[in-house]
Amino acid sequence: MRITEMHITPIALGDPPLLNAAGLHAPYCLRTVVELRTSDGLSGLAEVPGSVAVDQALAAVREVVIGADPRNWHALRARLAERCAPETSVARGDKPWDGRTRVQVYSALDVACLDLQGKAYGVRVADLLGGVVRERVPYSAYLFYKYEGAGGELGFGTDPRATGWAAARQRAALDPDGIVAQAEAMVAEFGFQSIKLKGGCFEPAQEVAAIHALRRRFGPGVPLRLDPNALWTVETSIRWGRDMEGVLEYLEDPCRTQAGMAEVRRMLKTPLATNMCTTSFDDLPGSVRLGSEDIILTDHHFWGGLRASMELAAHCRTFARGVSMHSNNHAGISLAAMTHLGAAMPNLSYALDTHYPWQWEEIIVGGRIRFEEGAVVLPAGPGLGVELDRSALARAHAAYLRAGLTERNDEIEMQKKVPGWKFAATRW
Amino acid sequence: MRITEMHITPIALGDPPLLNAAGLHAPYCLRTVVELRTSDGLSGLAEVPGSVAVDQALAAVREVVIGADPRNWHALRARLAERCAPETSVARGDKPWDGRTRVQVYSALDVACLDLQGKAYGVRVADLLGGVVRERVPYSAYLFYKYEGAGGELGFGTDPRATGWAAARQRAALDPDGIVAQAEAMVAEFGFQSIKLKGGCFEPAQEVAAIHALRRRFGPGVPLRLDPNALWTVETSIRWGRDMEGVLEYLEDPCRTQAGMAEVRRMLKTPLATNMCTTSFDDLPGSVRLGSEDIILTDHHFWGGLRASMELAAHCRTFARGVSMHSNNHAGISLAAMTHLGAAMPNLSYALDTHYPWQWEEIIVGGRIRFEEGAVVLPAGPGLGVELDRSALARAHAAYLRAGLTERNDEIEMQKKVPGWKFAATRW
Repeated sequence: MRITEMHITPIALGDPPLLNAAGLHAPYCLRTVVELRTSDGLSGLAEVPGSVAVDQALAAVREVVIGADPRNWHALRARLAERCAPETSVARGDKPWDGRTRVQVYSALDVACLDLQGKAYGVRVADLLGGVVRERVPYSAYLFYKYEGAGGELGFGTDPRATGWAAARQRAALDPDGIVAQAEAMVAEFGFQSIKLKGGCFEPAQEVAAIHALRRRFGPGVPLRLDPNALWTVETSIRWGRDMEGVLEYLEDPCRTQAGMAEVRRMLKTPLATNMCTTSFDDLPGSVRLGSEDIILTDHHFWGGLRASMELAAHCRTFARGVSMHSNNHAGISLAAMTHLGAAMPNLSYALDTHYPWQWEEIIVGGRIRFEEGAVVLPAGPGLGVELDRSALARAHAAYLRAGLTERNDEIEMQKKVPGWKFAATRW
Repeated sequence: MRITEMHITPIALGDPPLLNAAGLHAPYCLRTVVELRTSDGLSGLAEVPGSVAVDQALAAVREVVIGADPRNWHALRARLAERCAPETSVARGDKPWDGRTRVQVYSALDVACLDLQGKAYGVRVADLLGGVVRERVPYSAYLFYKYEGAGGELGFGTDPRATGWAAARQRAALDPDGIVAQAEAMVAEFGFQSIKLKGGCFEPAQEVAAIHALRRRFGPGVPLRLDPNALWTVETSIRWGRDMEGVLEYLEDPCRTQAGMAEVRRMLKTPLATNMCTTSFDDLPGSVRLGSEDIILTDHHFWGGLRASMELAAHCRTFARGVSMHSNNHAGISLAAMTHLGAAMPNLSYALDTHYPWQWEEIIVGGRIRFEEGAVVLPAGPGLGVELDRSALARAHAAYLRAGLTERNDEIEMQKKVPGWKFAATRW
């Protein structure tokens, strides 16, 4: 079996005006869909965060992908490594999100090749990762402070005909009451049984008040998490971490660097999670030496694929770290891949993050993937178990061309609302 | 696909009177062959070190193996873990070889299930481990001090008609000259391009003299290794390690414990390898904290299978350890499994150990696996690419019944030659 075609399709999906440490989500989020086709007529899919940089990096490896055997990941990965420059220029953690392109190239090819293998062998991707531990993979509600508006073709407008979660998704949430209302609507729609709040938007007192308001509303049976995206100092992290002791399931990346996290960790009982201070295998020796976190949030897009994320899970088992999953905006191919990974990971210790409720478009046959009691039922396969809806993909690609965006830049988007707003690596 | 039958067959293969830290090899080495059969008529094979304890442990999990899906290792492993007691009573390193049964049960089922998967999907086991990095897997010559004699049905006698390596294999090797002659014959027969000497038999001066004699005979182009099996003190290890600086590719387990190894490592430039101080995932945090070795020698029989050994390789990459492979006496099913693992391991950094030249019987169709320039060409598959020779298996099982051995006990065997001989954990 040989790869004969590689298609790289940038797409844009509507996204509401969500606030975060980096600024404001644009009306569109960008993704790139990779499709591999083989000599025996199979199609393998993957999806990665979209940017011109990633698209160019993917295009640059096309000549080593064409002709490769999708069953031999080690051989393909070695050739990709020769073609993709090491990312010495991007110090992860300095940027508000992960801009490393090499790991995203690995991820796209790893996932698409696993999809091909699963289809060739008649099994699910989770089977190829060692076997299914759980058929239902739990996700958490992912709350955002937001401005009023829907995003996408509607820009920052709203659709007055919307009902239920579709209506709630358009409403502003700029204080604890707004966050609680958002949580109620999201939990009612998807059945989530744990809740994460994206912080780093307002001063800590306000965000901590939102956590306490969620606790009062949902009670101790619903685990809560707060992610200030490393915008707090060590002192602020300890001060407000103490305020939330016994309330949070975990506190995610309150501050920057492994050393900073380790200092906070020594002073709090609440577990610390990260997808910013320990983000690659190269970071693991430092994590072990310093004891910088309790839980590592993998993301197969940034750890180099599903197999690499399984290797991370093995490291977490060895070094007594919990493991769960980070997310950016994504469509159904990524949700399927995340679900196969969550299904196969023996030591998955927390419900996974997903932005999925914030989108409404889809590029896969059958449309939006459904949640049952907060969980996604593992697709039946073979492979990832999802197929491209080619006309939906064409629409999303047309939206990409119309949107004219070349990368995610939440700072510029924020400046449209708050002139002169600047990203700060540490704010409080 | 479901497992419908599980066959556990203890066998004995002839083995010469090889000396080692634990005493003397008996005229037979014991192995246990596991065969799984599935509802669709496939047969999956594995081989583990033989003992009544391992056979009983395998028999005790039969009821969770029957009915299991061989494609779901995570599910089967979780059920095996419930049935196999944790091995709190065996402190690895205190015994001269690895007697833990749980990891051997895992290994047998992991390998046999991968063999089944490969056959079901029409691919090699190495493909299922992530892909083939090398089609030819290099092994090293494994030299032993030995008494004269052949082993097996011949007992400690010799066959005067033997020629070449078969003749050399019968000869005594009790000093440096004998070791050099053994190396010459083994290298001539198999084409090995690196050489390991099993030490821990004579006082260090004699074994170090043998290493220097090998160096003089083969030159600096043939890497040399010495394995005193942890019988030296820290002081002895440093003293004789210094004597061999620049001569050894690595020094394997000169002394006991991670702390001892770390102390020796600080004082020597020669890399240290281990299969005695870091032998499980539970040992890895201590290895990282203390810096106890440069190279970890995996052995899929003792690390819990081929997939677990790939996880170990990932840890070795993360923590800048080299990785290679330990061996005990084995037959062709194990050699095939070791070769698939060696073929798939991206960061394999040294030629693998194998006892294979010391045996002459085989239980697989086609008989003895051939070496080309010291390497085994990866079997073409599917699965492991080997099939049982059922009459040869029956003969080896009959030999097991005649031999009357229930476990490996080199101390008793040594006492037949040297009355009153006692194993000592530290000797020099």
